[in-house]
Amino acid sequence: MAAAIHPQLDFIHLREKQRSARELLDMTGKLLLAGVPSSKLVINDRVDVALAAGAAGVQLAWHSLPLSAARAAAPVLRLGKSVHSVQEAEEAGRQGADFCLFGHVFPSVCKPGQQERGLAQLADAVRVCGIPLIAIGGITPANTGLVLRQGAAGIAVMSGICSADDPLAAIRAYRRAVIQAEDKGGEGA
Amino acid sequence: MAAAIHPQLDFIHLREKQRSARELLDMTGKLLLAGVPSSKLVINDRVDVALAAGAAGVQLAWHSLPLSAARAAAPVLRLGKSVHSVQEAEEAGRQGADFCLFGHVFPSVCKPGQQERGLAQLADAVRVCGIPLIAIGGITPANTGLVLRQGAAGIAVMSGICSADDPLAAIRAYRRAVIQAEDKGGEGA
Repeated sequence: MAAAIHPQLDFIHLREKQRSARELLDMTGKLLLAGVPSSKLVINDRVDVALAAGAAGVQLAWHSLPLSAARAAAPVLRLGKSVHSVQEAEEAGRQGADFCLFGHVFPSVCKPGQQERGLAQLADAVRVCGIPLIAIGGITPANTGLVLRQGAAGIAVMSGICSADDPLAAIRAYRRAVIQAEDKGGEGA
Repeated sequence: MAAAIHPQLDFIHLREKQRSARELLDMTGKLLLAGVPSSKLVINDRVDVALAAGAAGVQLAWHSLPLSAARAAAPVLRLGKSVHSVQEAEEAGRQGADFCLFGHVFPSVCKPGQQERGLAQLADAVRVCGIPLIAIGGITPANTGLVLRQGAAGIAVMSGICSADDPLAAIRAYRRAVIQAEDKGGEGA
């Protein structure tokens, strides 16, 4: 599966919060064996696992090491920060994150009952953070263009792929939507 | 408290398994502010927190990064391995751990209903591991000498200190027992 999907993806984000360091490293080992380049791997929270796996980066949440501490521990890693408001996006940029993950943009099955941020906040967050912003939450192939037109540098998808009947078909649909949006952006420029 | 006790201790092992990386780093920050030298700090499992805190080392359990991966991620850290049998102690030495924590030696309130390893296994583990072995589990000031005479390089204590009515007095009693054992060892040599 990993071998089939990774060519369609820029990054694979391992977000298994209940797994131990050893389990996470085993998972990265299996992905690498399947042919996924380590340069596409982003590990949630565990800077040490990312270092040990030779991953491209680590995704830091509010409970993770602060950016400056993570940078000191691992100067070689790209550091992403998960943010949930325009203010947090601004802070992530100011504190030197390499990118941020902003959401949830639309209502999401992963965040039941929680108010979505919406497109206006997404556009504001892009404007103030000054770093590449990846949008997450309720993104579908149908609304991908709308998201990218707010200035998001990319999209991240969980249930839209993982809960799909045919994950590979879902990934291809997202990929087409991104390419279409990029083409339209190019025409508009 | 930390300021009062650390002169009596060679190492302080932060073993808060349910804490996030940020919480652990905050705890180390408080210990450092209280005057505990970073060279006395050992962090459980989280190699990244140990790196960020400038700690002396990290204690690896079975669910932690394997030794070789931890070494690759953090060449500057002293790596301890928690072991529970003579065979695991031998493996820890062979895999290049800097030290191991062996236990539980005596029945311990921390391991209710689990069979203790005992002094004979402790002595065997010391013999085969070839690295400094720290004994843990049910150690009291009264049996400290017995433990060190099996060749353990030191003792680690949890409830004997943390559950004591007067932790500082407990630490001093352990310290005296260690010094007495060292003096006797010197006379015998």
